[in-house]
Amino acid sequence: MNGFGHGRVQAPPGVQCFVGEEARRRRRIEERVVSVFEGWSYEEIIPPLFDYADVFLGELSSKTYSFVGRDGSLLALRPDFTSLLAKIAAGRLLQQPAPMRLYYSGEVLRYEPPKAGRQSELFQMGCEHLGGAPPTADAEVLAIAAECLEAAGAKDYVLSLGHVGVFAGLVAESGLDAGRVEALRERIESKDEAGVRETLRGSGASARLGQALESLASFAGELGRLREAQEAFAFSPPAAAALDELGQSAGALAAAGLADRLALDLAEVRGLDYYTGLVFRAYAPGLGFEVASGGRYDSLLARFGRPLRAVGFMIGLDRLALLLERQGGLGSTSQPRAETLEPRGGLGERLRLARERRRAGARIRLDGGVR
Amino acid sequence: MNGFGHGRVQAPPGVQCFVGEEARRRRRIEERVVSVFEGWSYEEIIPPLFDYADVFLGELSSKTYSFVGRDGSLLALRPDFTSLLAKIAAGRLLQQPAPMRLYYSGEVLRYEPPKAGRQSELFQMGCEHLGGAPPTADAEVLAIAAECLEAAGAKDYVLSLGHVGVFAGLVAESGLDAGRVEALRERIESKDEAGVRETLRGSGASARLGQALESLASFAGELGRLREAQEAFAFSPPAAAALDELGQSAGALAAAGLADRLALDLAEVRGLDYYTGLVFRAYAPGLGFEVASGGRYDSLLARFGRPLRAVGFMIGLDRLALLLERQGGLGSTSQPRAETLEPRGGLGERLRLARERRRAGARIRLDGGVR
Repeated sequence: MNGFGHGRVQAPPGVQCFVGEEARRRRRIEERVVSVFEGWSYEEIIPPLFDYADVFLGELSSKTYSFVGRDGSLLALRPDFTSLLAKIAAGRLLQQPAPMRLYYSGEVLRYEPPKAGRQSELFQMGCEHLGGAPPTADAEVLAIAAECLEAAGAKDYVLSLGHVGVFAGLVAESGLDAGRVEALRERIESKDEAGVRETLRGSGASARLGQALESLASFAGELGRLREAQEAFAFSPPAAAALDELGQSAGALAAAGLADRLALDLAEVRGLDYYTGLVFRAYAPGLGFEVASGGRYDSLLARFGRPLRAVGFMIGLDRLALLLERQGGLGSTSQPRAETLEPRGGLGERLRLARERRRAGARIRLDGGVR
Repeated sequence: MNGFGHGRVQAPPGVQCFVGEEARRRRRIEERVVSVFEGWSYEEIIPPLFDYADVFLGELSSKTYSFVGRDGSLLALRPDFTSLLAKIAAGRLLQQPAPMRLYYSGEVLRYEPPKAGRQSELFQMGCEHLGGAPPTADAEVLAIAAECLEAAGAKDYVLSLGHVGVFAGLVAESGLDAGRVEALRERIESKDEAGVRETLRGSGASARLGQALESLASFAGELGRLREAQEAFAFSPPAAAALDELGQSAGALAAAGLADRLALDLAEVRGLDYYTGLVFRAYAPGLGFEVASGGRYDSLLARFGRPLRAVGFMIGLDRLALLLERQGGLGSTSQPRAETLEPRGGLGERLRLARERRRAGARIRLDGGVR
């Protein structure tokens, strides 16, 4: 025992702790979102909290909490669910035929700098559609995201749609080196047209390509601008194909009554590095960052030996709870008033009454016995 | 990337993974248990998954998965909830008046030898009554444990009651050295009367004490034997007081209709090392180990600076699910049949129909789009 050097009752930075009303609100939101996943025939999966560290590669690998297991292997707490589900779908669920519809709900842990004010512990709910092609599976997942936000009570949300194939298609045969492509991706994501111009200087890229990349940085707004993008990028067959694919999913959602809930953001070209097609984020007034995000990742499952196309998204419970609080959307989570059983008569008689009232469905509270 | 030396899709030993029906069953059981906690006016607490390692002392400290945080402090994944809740009650919840009624539901992680076949990851649901004295708070917690098992559908369960104060009282003024007391505790817990005799040889313990300790090893069975124990240990005032306290809680439960569900096990003297009074385990036919366990721990909160008496228990979800499976107790967890929306007509029209059927409360499944 080394005493409590960090203060006896202080918590490590970035961890969660919810009590009472806050916990109840989270449970209520989770129930609503889960019922949407189940309503679309998704099956719950409860994966392990940690796995071998090499399951979590790419961008997130630098953020994993890792430790050594008893058998000497390097383990890591899950920093997200998608890689874990991909591995399980390719292993334990290998015999299940595609398409598989899976959902999850639980904590992820990320190693954040102690003073960044970011959470180390996040609660995510999400679903993955494994083995489905665009536009059908993409549209399904987007419709589910919309219904989750509606079911939770979020108002005026917008699904902002992009497709990483537009940028990838434009630069595919450009001859630009990998470093410059990465720099461009960053400048476009930052919606920095001048930066794009700057990055291309001396690259030998054609004027047409330069103009297209520059305009990509500002291709955000109403979904109607998709047509404009299709004209502007028609010279690149892979970029045009990506836009066409995006247009089909978006068109289906609009036909299903969600036209007002859709927006375009072609400058969304980064996201998690396993995305290969559709990428999207959900925003709503009252929150300065996205409440949900997702996309298509067609090559992740192949890494685990089962090549299957895939698309999914996740909602941050912490963010959704904050949004609903700001919008006043969740409504009351108060519980029925408890009947107090006063310390009169014998303890046995009080307990008997307590059990009787509980059988009748009452919420009770046993008084007395306090020291 | 170092490749997948351990097999690409293998899971680390002892971790959990539940899919579909299994996950649904767990969610159903959790809902039922949580509704009992809420019905007795317990408030949910969602504590962090990890904390400073020195929060988890005693028996469990050798079983924590620990790692170093960004600020260099030693952190540990929670191996149980009770210490964590005690710390939070003494810190974050310091302003909340006692008694506090808290419940939790979530995973704990324990570092188990890789080949022991034991789980590293366990899902526990439990409640803690902080600031309440025996017998009232003890009886309340026992009644809740009973109702949780009933609500989940467990049949013929038994709450086996003990009190660590009986053994502690007997040895208190015996002059036995600490090593011998520890050895005795172990022998009694193993119900090994000959071992107790052996351990006492040459200790100078009185014949009366020797006989009492020996008989403690076999004081298990019907609750009616409590009277017999009261006679046998009457010579030791603290042991007699412990039995009297236990008798009051047990009597109240019996009066409340639970007489058939109670048993006595005074040989239960170990348990977690923070227990100071009542200890109990719940058993049921079909499971060779306890499904729930708990007890009173009156000195744990003082360690965090807020001296409060406390009593609580936890149910192992994995164990309860196994018990219900063996007893056939949970009933069906099947879901309403999903309406399949066939790939006829346009995708937009199908999505529109899907949203319409969802609004009507239907469970649906979108077909097609598989590659």
